[in-house]
Amino acid sequence: MYFPSWLSQLYRGLSRPIRRTTQPIWGSLYRSLLQSSQRRIPEFSSFVVRTNTCGELRSSHLGQEVTLCGWIQYRRQNTFLVLRDFDGLVQVIIPQDEKMPTGEIEIKVKTAELLNACKKLPFEIKNFVKKTEALRLQYRYLDLRSFQMQYNLRLRSQMVMKMREYLCNLHGFVDIETPTLFKRTPGGAKEFLVPSREPGKFYSLPQSPQQFKQLLMVGGLDRYFQVARCYRDEGSRPDRQPEFTQIDIEMSFVDQTGIQSLIEGLLQYSWPNDKDPVVVPFPTMTFAEVLATYGTDKPDTRFGMKKYLKRKDIESIRNFAADHFNQEILPVFLNANRNWNSPVANFIMESQRLELIRLMETQEEDVVLLTAGEHNKACSLLGKLRLECADLLETRGVVLRDPTLFSFLWVVDFPLFLPKEENPRELESAHHPFTAPHPSDIHLLYTEPKKARSQHYDLVLNGNEIGGGSIRIHNAELQRYILATLLKEDVKMLSHLLQALDYGAPPHGGIALGLDRLICLVTGSPSIRDVIAFPKSFRGHDLMSNTPDSVPPEELKPYHIRVSKPTDSKAERAH
Amino acid sequence: MYFPSWLSQLYRGLSRPIRRTTQPIWGSLYRSLLQSSQRRIPEFSSFVVRTNTCGELRSSHLGQEVTLCGWIQYRRQNTFLVLRDFDGLVQVIIPQDEKMPTGEIEIKVKTAELLNACKKLPFEIKNFVKKTEALRLQYRYLDLRSFQMQYNLRLRSQMVMKMREYLCNLHGFVDIETPTLFKRTPGGAKEFLVPSREPGKFYSLPQSPQQFKQLLMVGGLDRYFQVARCYRDEGSRPDRQPEFTQIDIEMSFVDQTGIQSLIEGLLQYSWPNDKDPVVVPFPTMTFAEVLATYGTDKPDTRFGMKKYLKRKDIESIRNFAADHFNQEILPVFLNANRNWNSPVANFIMESQRLELIRLMETQEEDVVLLTAGEHNKACSLLGKLRLECADLLETRGVVLRDPTLFSFLWVVDFPLFLPKEENPRELESAHHPFTAPHPSDIHLLYTEPKKARSQHYDLVLNGNEIGGGSIRIHNAELQRYILATLLKEDVKMLSHLLQALDYGAPPHGGIALGLDRLICLVTGSPSIRDVIAFPKSFRGHDLMSNTPDSVPPEELKPYHIRVSKPTDSKAERAH
Repeated sequence: MYFPSWLSQLYRGLSRPIRRTTQPIWGSLYRSLLQSSQRRIPEFSSFVVRTNTCGELRSSHLGQEVTLCGWIQYRRQNTFLVLRDFDGLVQVIIPQDEKMPTGEIEIKVKTAELLNACKKLPFEIKNFVKKTEALRLQYRYLDLRSFQMQYNLRLRSQMVMKMREYLCNLHGFVDIETPTLFKRTPGGAKEFLVPSREPGKFYSLPQSPQQFKQLLMVGGLDRYFQVARCYRDEGSRPDRQPEFTQIDIEMSFVDQTGIQSLIEGLLQYSWPNDKDPVVVPFPTMTFAEVLATYGTDKPDTRFGMKKYLKRKDIESIRNFAADHFNQEILPVFLNANRNWNSPVANFIMESQRLELIRLMETQEEDVVLLTAGEHNKACSLLGKLRLECADLLETRGVVLRDPTLFSFLWVVDFPLFLPKEENPRELESAHHPFTAPHPSDIHLLYTEPKKARSQHYDLVLNGNEIGGGSIRIHNAELQRYILATLLKEDVKMLSHLLQALDYGAPPHGGIALGLDRLICLVTGSPSIRDVIAFPKSFRGHDLMSNTPDSVPPEELKPYHIRVSKPTDSKAERAH
Repeated sequence: MYFPSWLSQLYRGLSRPIRRTTQPIWGSLYRSLLQSSQRRIPEFSSFVVRTNTCGELRSSHLGQEVTLCGWIQYRRQNTFLVLRDFDGLVQVIIPQDEKMPTGEIEIKVKTAELLNACKKLPFEIKNFVKKTEALRLQYRYLDLRSFQMQYNLRLRSQMVMKMREYLCNLHGFVDIETPTLFKRTPGGAKEFLVPSREPGKFYSLPQSPQQFKQLLMVGGLDRYFQVARCYRDEGSRPDRQPEFTQIDIEMSFVDQTGIQSLIEGLLQYSWPNDKDPVVVPFPTMTFAEVLATYGTDKPDTRFGMKKYLKRKDIESIRNFAADHFNQEILPVFLNANRNWNSPVANFIMESQRLELIRLMETQEEDVVLLTAGEHNKACSLLGKLRLECADLLETRGVVLRDPTLFSFLWVVDFPLFLPKEENPRELESAHHPFTAPHPSDIHLLYTEPKKARSQHYDLVLNGNEIGGGSIRIHNAELQRYILATLLKEDVKMLSHLLQALDYGAPPHGGIALGLDRLICLVTGSPSIRDVIAFPKSFRGHDLMSNTPDSVPPEELKPYHIRVSKPTDSKAERAH
């Protein structure tokens, strides 16, 4: 932890910055995250009037004259102060004639200058003071003073810095900025629009630098990365942000295992030193395997989940399955004599029973939940029940999902296409149309495209998808066939990319890691809003500044747009 | 230089990536930029099938088996190939029965795999082949293969990486991402709008993270930086981009000299090793001094400009001044006897003449250009003439502006306010309303605000403003007085910032460096478009993808906007 645990306990409403020249005798600080994770401690007092941070002083500074700048954390009469900055706290004693009753040491103040005053804070900055998230977001600049936000944002900065060192300095990647004012992509219904000064012409804020990074490969910049700002307009969704950040990577002449090794090394190198080290390589499972085993393509592999359920839990799980999925669940309780205590026992043959016991490696006292139905649907239900069981058991105090454990998993061999939701006879890309088919399945594109697997890979951490990528199609003809013939997309909007592939595009592939989600998991934060300095609310609002806001009509004019209020269309019809 | 100079000379239309397993005997490469500037050479062949880059091989590799991936740069029959990647070129010879007639060495190919084919390129990638910029931008992915674009983008990545090391690892700055979907700022007429899904409500793409970085200081994140994407909609302007990047910095408890030392150290640390080192500290001049001396607030200080003019040049300069500024210029030629050969000689007293000679430190053969008028206007004209004279002299072969010379200058003590252009009785901020007044001039705010100087500072390099910043106002009352009383702004839109200052804002200040312009000057590029991977044209278009583009009406609906074509308003009036 970056701060002493008692720091946040000591926060007070009184908070004004002050500059002090003191003779330090006593000081206390904690900076282990920095000490252990970097080659040298950065110089926090260069270029400014202070000589030390509040948290830096030790008995080794005894006798030195120091200048400190900070906020008054606590004040008793005019004799005793606790001064605070991001780095910690220090006690300051203003000289009195009488002997100080407490402490073995004293600090002699020479001069003090009040730099600013502070109004009564809207909430006390203490961990145990419950605040609504709305209040925290409204006064974000005060919330940022909390121990947890300081820790989260500083850890994020350091982790990204180490990723850059790994990519740039160790492996020759080039950090390249790509535009965020771009053209809308086919089917890009979730893209924000930006009106231009040309009537009826719009830019679009892209969901990722996908096209640009592939074009960079064509351009011979063969190891690209970017900490890329991306945009997605999904309306109101909890724990999503309209703008988010991804570690965006692309390489030429690489295959799936190359990207996987790169990412394993990246996470190992950048992992915070106050956590257990990352063990590589990460295990890999195919999409078919994870679905059959865990009932999801992003399983939490920290736990197996086979024990501890009570009989009344089973009832609640059966109800959950019936209520949420309209699906029957049959529990099987295994006795010492391996008999089944279950309503299903009568409908199953002895040989089937033994085969199931063997397949599931069940042991005495195990509970097995059985369901029947279409494979994907049944697996998915059981996957949800597994998490439901975990929730249940954790309320009983069984630690299944150890918060200090980070369990990574690669999921590979996804299907290349899925049936379209609105018309299941047509195909859509399972991920995006630039994903290369699995080398063994290319022939299926021309016969049974639904069965073709892709060279897409997901990285899963503790049940969350934290990254995904693929080897891309580098052959223009194959790309055209998939876009035009299989997906029935209008290729005109992608003509620049198809043309680029025609001019000697190298084989290439890449990946994007969701930085906000990753840092959220690493810091154990309940929401990605806790690892972003100024997040939007789940409705996409900035509660501090009242964003988005209305705009006077004369400022819309240069962009040739008018607001059509929902009532307008009614008015129009009436008209 | 990163590439051998002959690399770009050798580019050919034929260009298909190929993977080769060869027995290398001869290779050639140049990677001095990396070798000299980084602690170690990054590993360019990790995670991929190649064992070496094309430019890496030396005679020390003799006898090793290597795998190369690259583009065919040149091919003669089926006996001889030049293989290319970003790193350089290597010769490959396909074994023949007959003895090779050239070279002391040979390379034995074991296997070769053709990875992709390449259509005839729209232009040959050779330095001496003239291409219009429009063609280069249309096929940007091919233009990126050129020596110069590879050099520019790789240098940019390395320079930014070193800036990050300096700020993060050496000086404890925290890299914090701030939102780009924000609220429009008062008077922010140049801000792009982003319609939200709430009728009539818009986000705005901010011109800089100014408000956020000040709020971070209030939040105790006392050393912030960000390589920040910024947006400015200025319509069509040459050499401006609708999105651009700045190195954005803010610190608490700092003064002007602190920021200046920080930036001097930053540039010195990150300066490319193939250039002359940066000498610090940079000289400082006040705004009044630079205007009087150079006639501009961003002087090119590489040259003094006092000699070499011919009589016919003077005529052309007088015409330039008359045509462009409607202003009379009087040239004075100094003879050996210090007499003036000038029409003005008759109208000036001997004592004045001697005083002028003394003040200007003129010498024999000097030419002095005199003009009269309002101080700022006259200075500004003379400043423009100085550059005009430099242009003239350089066409004569006099090297005044050495391209290898980097001449930095701090300009300080700017005025805090300027008269508004549209109503000169009212004031507007010379820079922005958060700039702190000069400590000696605070009393002037209440008496003669026009005369108050600010704590703003600009960093000038070779006649270009490459950065600017200020110490900010941290007192809420002073900020309110300046916004409401002096600038007559609507403070409601900034209420969150004013409120934040009330909660114990520390003294703080910062700066922003224009990264695109800086890299443009460092690389000696003619345009900032040459240091951006995918720039917009001067009309704000992406010529490769045809951006901005029209959007079907149904995609505008969720945003409650309609396009009002210029003809619509006429139609409305008719209606």
